[in-house]
Amino acid sequence: MALVECGVIRTPRSPLADRLLEIFEGVAEVIERTRPDVLCVEGVFYGRNVRTTVTLGHARAAVMLAAAVRGLPVVEYPPAEVKNAVVGTGKAAKGQMAFMVQQHLSLSEPPTPPDAADGVALALCHLFQDRFTGAQAEARGEVGGQDRD
Amino acid sequence: MALVECGVIRTPRSPLADRLLEIFEGVAEVIERTRPDVLCVEGVFYGRNVRTTVTLGHARAAVMLAAAVRGLPVVEYPPAEVKNAVVGTGKAAKGQMAFMVQQHLSLSEPPTPPDAADGVALALCHLFQDRFTGAQAEARGEVGGQDRD
Repeated sequence: MALVECGVIRTPRSPLADRLLEIFEGVAEVIERTRPDVLCVEGVFYGRNVRTTVTLGHARAAVMLAAAVRGLPVVEYPPAEVKNAVVGTGKAAKGQMAFMVQQHLSLSEPPTPPDAADGVALALCHLFQDRFTGAQAEARGEVGGQDRD
Repeated sequence: MALVECGVIRTPRSPLADRLLEIFEGVAEVIERTRPDVLCVEGVFYGRNVRTTVTLGHARAAVMLAAAVRGLPVVEYPPAEVKNAVVGTGKAAKGQMAFMVQQHLSLSEPPTPPDAADGVALALCHLFQDRFTGAQAEARGEVGGQDRD
């Protein structure tokens, strides 16, 4: 398991369509350059502020579409599931997430900003899930050991 | 003022990324075929059901992105403004909207389904707005009469 890169896409306070385009093209650029096998997005967190939640929904759609137009599979994980997989509890604080991401990947320091660490945590959650389902399939004799790394 | 076409894009109960792709590609097809000057979207209506509102936010993003990736301007109108422009009151029922759309465009019957009529109402709202701002500019002597149709 190794971290290739992580980061955040920040958009200026421009009209929504322009911001969505920046996110869409920003994610597209990373996909084209790093050629991933899957794109993971965090499920919607229904926070107290409905407007923020709805705006984040727009951003999520831009991220998913950048993958979908390329035929790249999109997998969603609820925020609590990501926390549980990486920290061991569904109610982890941001600092804990960044620390555990650092531990899992043996990084010299936690990824910054914290939102980038959240993105890496999401990737880890998918890898752990994948290993788990892979191990289950193996136990059932459905997958040969040599097929998995 | 004439209606070229109207309609709705319905997506099956597939994963969200697939549904967003269908909306994105469906709108793209209409844009490529009809070559509009602008794409109008209704502003977010914060209804009682937060989940529905968030899901609609995702769909809105797919519609806006289909325009944005082509450099087509995107304009938003709040639902009440559309109703006010077309029916004369911000609290119009769906049936009233369809009826007034029919009247404005001298159609033999209201567009169906009602969601398609809402789309046409949005286009009318933009045209009325455009005429109004055009008339204002003209009154200030900023726009020559021959530049406008």
